[in-house]
Amino acid sequence: MRKIGKKEINDIATGAALLGAGGGGDPYIGRLIALNAVEECGEVTLLSPDEVPDDAFIVPIAMMGAPTVLCEKAINGGEYRVLAQMVESYFGRKIYAFMPIEAGGVNSMLPFAAAARLGLPLVDCDGMGRAFPELQMVTFTLGGMNATPMALTDEKGNSCIFNTITNKWTEELARSVTMSCGGSVSVCLYTMSGAEMKKYAVRDIITRSERLGSAMRVIKESGQDDTEARFLEITEGFKLFKGKIVDVKREVRGAFNFGRVVLEGIGEYKNHSSYVEFQNENLAAVVDGRIVATVPDLICLVDSNTYTPVPTDALKYGKRVLVIGLRCFEQWRSEGGLALVGPRYFGIETDYIPIEERVNA
Amino acid sequence: MRKIGKKEINDIATGAALLGAGGGGDPYIGRLIALNAVEECGEVTLLSPDEVPDDAFIVPIAMMGAPTVLCEKAINGGEYRVLAQMVESYFGRKIYAFMPIEAGGVNSMLPFAAAARLGLPLVDCDGMGRAFPELQMVTFTLGGMNATPMALTDEKGNSCIFNTITNKWTEELARSVTMSCGGSVSVCLYTMSGAEMKKYAVRDIITRSERLGSAMRVIKESGQDDTEARFLEITEGFKLFKGKIVDVKREVRGAFNFGRVVLEGIGEYKNHSSYVEFQNENLAAVVDGRIVATVPDLICLVDSNTYTPVPTDALKYGKRVLVIGLRCFEQWRSEGGLALVGPRYFGIETDYIPIEERVNA
Repeated sequence: MRKIGKKEINDIATGAALLGAGGGGDPYIGRLIALNAVEECGEVTLLSPDEVPDDAFIVPIAMMGAPTVLCEKAINGGEYRVLAQMVESYFGRKIYAFMPIEAGGVNSMLPFAAAARLGLPLVDCDGMGRAFPELQMVTFTLGGMNATPMALTDEKGNSCIFNTITNKWTEELARSVTMSCGGSVSVCLYTMSGAEMKKYAVRDIITRSERLGSAMRVIKESGQDDTEARFLEITEGFKLFKGKIVDVKREVRGAFNFGRVVLEGIGEYKNHSSYVEFQNENLAAVVDGRIVATVPDLICLVDSNTYTPVPTDALKYGKRVLVIGLRCFEQWRSEGGLALVGPRYFGIETDYIPIEERVNA
Repeated sequence: MRKIGKKEINDIATGAALLGAGGGGDPYIGRLIALNAVEECGEVTLLSPDEVPDDAFIVPIAMMGAPTVLCEKAINGGEYRVLAQMVESYFGRKIYAFMPIEAGGVNSMLPFAAAARLGLPLVDCDGMGRAFPELQMVTFTLGGMNATPMALTDEKGNSCIFNTITNKWTEELARSVTMSCGGSVSVCLYTMSGAEMKKYAVRDIITRSERLGSAMRVIKESGQDDTEARFLEITEGFKLFKGKIVDVKREVRGAFNFGRVVLEGIGEYKNHSSYVEFQNENLAAVVDGRIVATVPDLICLVDSNTYTPVPTDALKYGKRVLVIGLRCFEQWRSEGGLALVGPRYFGIETDYIPIEERVNA
């Protein structure tokens, strides 16, 4: 158990945005939401999974929708309270703690804001160890858990509770409502016991985000020259490409951001080219026509000077970026994991090959 | 209070299909669903509105979606029970009686099936006095009542409970989920007290449907020649056109059936032409380029020999039909009523003129 204040939140936001792999929302917005809440309501208590009683009622909280919409439709603090009331009244139980469902600029920060404003602790875990675009893409699905009963609310005051036969159906129905509500909403889903959380969640992801963010801050502040090597070292990242953004194709469809960013090589990548496909999150990186990384491994674009993560909704012509790949949470590499979040699910016609093998091939 | 058995159901189905004004579902399917339920579970008790205590918990039940889909996705009896359980557990109250929300081949019959299977009475009223395509188009909206909390379930076992800020938002969100569920679902909405039902509902609509259906049956069975005049007399209908269907344009969009049926005159209408626009229900009838009737008045197509109502999803090339117009429930002619269901709401660029005035113009 430890307290999370403004300094920690700044680092967590940076690290979580990197682990968002292009998705999970804009870290600038996410950081502001969390910092405001902590400033107004005080620090948040972060619990290690093992500090949570087995019978505690644990509630993941997140925003759902297209990141480009999410950053224009500012969240209204009242939504956390509405969600908490919906969940507590539906289950007839008090929430013991919140947890994030995915890493990312907004979806790692929103749970801090909710926890601060409602005076509840947060558990140091999530359901992805990164961000993925669809609701069923969590370790809890691999564990056989149900996404529903799921609570959804928009900023206007519309709300729904879903009960579905599969987690893919949860995604279908909640996505339709998200679109009708204007493209982004707030949700609680995969409510669970402390025991289930300990069994299936990706542990210590907030602490990992904080360490990453803190190291990235130190590198940025150092003003030294060998920073790229240090950045790759602390992130345990594989360098995939470095280039200037020369084109961004983007489409908001089905409350997702779909698109492709095209890069022209710089430095040692001069005369080479690359593109990265995304659906909210980066799905596949291709260099000179060869796939160099795919989901579920993380493909992350960062500013080549400051190492600030660049989410898919902030891709802009002319920006210089470093593309790195990170190993995903081990469970995603299982047969069940790849059926849920492997490249073929997203229409990328290749088998999954772990990034460390692709890079050394 | 009286008992409704198979004979009454047959007549109610016919009359309700006429009052469905082209919508409300296929009376063949509706009749089968209700007859099976009554055969298996016994007759249904029909209550007059005034027999219901003011504090009784009254629950409208209906199918929502495109009629063409609805008749292919047969309803599974379990859906009534799921809906009833959702509603009772959400409100913590026992249902006193069901009621229909609209008249129509399916939506007048489904409540009988639900009442028979769950052993509950049915109240002789609805919220439209006809059928309309959207959820907010009920007298309860004019009375300031909320459509939500609304329960929705599909035949697969997915379900939602909605709470919305306006009844138009209920329509938006529930329609999205209906589409995602395959185009038709079962719903309970506008749950109300006996007092609210007595104040805002369209009364005695089931009895009216039964009288219409019974009279239509007698005409059909009589085998006499002057039947058309008698049909118009008993329905109090205005004869608008008689013709052969020469074209049907149809599109399923947003879980609605949109379309236009084109008629070539027969008998005294020889060398004249007509078309009727519909969105699930018939919206406007045009003869030789002149509008002769619009919503909220009822435009009904019936087989020109048997007077069997022809719903919009059963329109077929070559069928000979009589087009009649019926006066709508008086409240629809108020300013609020016309804002909700007048021709301009449906994109028909004309002021509402009551059918009796249009016909005599």
